[in-house]
Amino acid sequence: MFVDPKSVTRVSSLGAGPIGGGWTAHFLARGYDVTAYLHDESERNAFLSIINTAWVSLIDLGLSPGASMDRLSIVTNLEEALEGAEFVQESGPERLEVKKALYAKIGNILPSSVVIGSSTSGLMMSDIQADCTTPERTVIGHPFNPPYLLPLVEIVGGKKTAPEAVAWAGKFYKVAGKAPLMMKKEIPGFVATRLQEALWREALHMVANGEATPEDIDIALMNGPAPRMAAQGQCMAFHVACGEGGMATNLDQFGPALKLPWTRLEAPELTKDLRDRMVNGCNLVAKDQHFEDMVAQRDREIVGVLNALRQARSD
Amino acid sequence: MFVDPKSVTRVSSLGAGPIGGGWTAHFLARGYDVTAYLHDESERNAFLSIINTAWVSLIDLGLSPGASMDRLSIVTNLEEALEGAEFVQESGPERLEVKKALYAKIGNILPSSVVIGSSTSGLMMSDIQADCTTPERTVIGHPFNPPYLLPLVEIVGGKKTAPEAVAWAGKFYKVAGKAPLMMKKEIPGFVATRLQEALWREALHMVANGEATPEDIDIALMNGPAPRMAAQGQCMAFHVACGEGGMATNLDQFGPALKLPWTRLEAPELTKDLRDRMVNGCNLVAKDQHFEDMVAQRDREIVGVLNALRQARSD
Repeated sequence: MFVDPKSVTRVSSLGAGPIGGGWTAHFLARGYDVTAYLHDESERNAFLSIINTAWVSLIDLGLSPGASMDRLSIVTNLEEALEGAEFVQESGPERLEVKKALYAKIGNILPSSVVIGSSTSGLMMSDIQADCTTPERTVIGHPFNPPYLLPLVEIVGGKKTAPEAVAWAGKFYKVAGKAPLMMKKEIPGFVATRLQEALWREALHMVANGEATPEDIDIALMNGPAPRMAAQGQCMAFHVACGEGGMATNLDQFGPALKLPWTRLEAPELTKDLRDRMVNGCNLVAKDQHFEDMVAQRDREIVGVLNALRQARSD
Repeated sequence: MFVDPKSVTRVSSLGAGPIGGGWTAHFLARGYDVTAYLHDESERNAFLSIINTAWVSLIDLGLSPGASMDRLSIVTNLEEALEGAEFVQESGPERLEVKKALYAKIGNILPSSVVIGSSTSGLMMSDIQADCTTPERTVIGHPFNPPYLLPLVEIVGGKKTAPEAVAWAGKFYKVAGKAPLMMKKEIPGFVATRLQEALWREALHMVANGEATPEDIDIALMNGPAPRMAAQGQCMAFHVACGEGGMATNLDQFGPALKLPWTRLEAPELTKDLRDRMVNGCNLVAKDQHFEDMVAQRDREIVGVLNALRQARSD
């Protein structure tokens, strides 16, 4: 039904904003031909400025062979934008009615063997695809801002999406240099935004209560959890910090701390099932690595992050 | 009352665990003479192993002139441990009764002009200092694990702490190479742990509901929010991402999203006061920088973080 994800050479990117522009820059940097669709010619300059800004960083990260800004075409006609596309990244306005109408239109123009990924951060594909006559190939492909730098893409289908389209999108994004996260369920905010949003709401509570300023929040994050989280995430950070015992020690020993008022968010009940899912999940990632080697690796990565930030700030 | 923070040359570090060991390594790397107090001689080997592990990374981050592991003395007698100390970092067991008894003892041995910083993550200084006869100089100096790498130290006094001691601790930690955060209020979990804990509880909820595995959580963080958070925190990340309008645009435009079920944590009411605190706080940090320069700087830092992680993982 679908082409080999590795054979894709032409991508259409719909949308002139920071997300559409960021995706366009990313695909160009990975060596694709990209047709960008702008709603209106007047958006061209701002759009090109996003790509020019992104290109500086993309060079530093390393371009794929053949990557060139010359491989970008900009059009304002949707039919033209979709012509020859082997994948479509849609980053239109975040309004359900606008997206529904857009997917109804694209659904009739684009061959049904071409997958469409939506950048939406707040809407569900089950809703977006409601009026599309070819919804089987429509998936969420949610990036993280800035999309030309951060590798994450969260992937999930709607009720009418074919599992093959979801699987194809996962493979394609990986080939295209992204870090795909195949979601288990269609939930509001997906995974990364939910985690960030919980942290953000706690931050707002602290500012509202006069417990911290925005500057305090950022000092705390940048010098505390964030460099480690960039290296290890949060589950493996706790797993590795607990020595031989790993996540089991963390939950069995510090489980009661989940009842402490350390945030306004109530913790879930730490059932045996949840405990086992956490422990087994961390063991799966750790495989047969000894915790001392994981500590050494964590430290190498944090040192790299700290030195890189110091370097970037002194340039 | 207190000595010049810059003149301090000898530090006592109490506690043989990862936090006490990590602090000891940090102070040694910054060129201090360090007397480490272990509760029992049997803890010596594990303690030295923590320091040896830390030292590898501390060399990569750069040692201060004169820094040497030879400047470490290890003792198991508390009087001896405190002799000549110009600052004391206490990283004893996280049990209130143990800490109260320890502060009662130290309070009578150590000259009252020497500040004591506690590494506690879960207790309040108002409680810890209850039985200390010289509580004015006792403060929280809460590090983030691993304390030899992550720069954050959260500083706050208890009810009986003198404001001068809190201010002194802030200056001293800065001289000693840390990133001090002067807290506005004594709240459980301080700032960084509250933020991390909100995120952690949302992660546990997702795993409990079968919405994500621990591996998914970490993939999402490492490839999404974390590299950006290491560069900018979260307030400035939103401020800079919103272009000219900054945090004001973020809150005025996306404020309603705070009502969306994007996490289990209820957001505070977005009052005019909270909105203004957020906006003014971000403007204070941004000073007169143009948002385009801040975007470019953010991108340089994220590129640095991503390249550093890639490098550390391929070594």
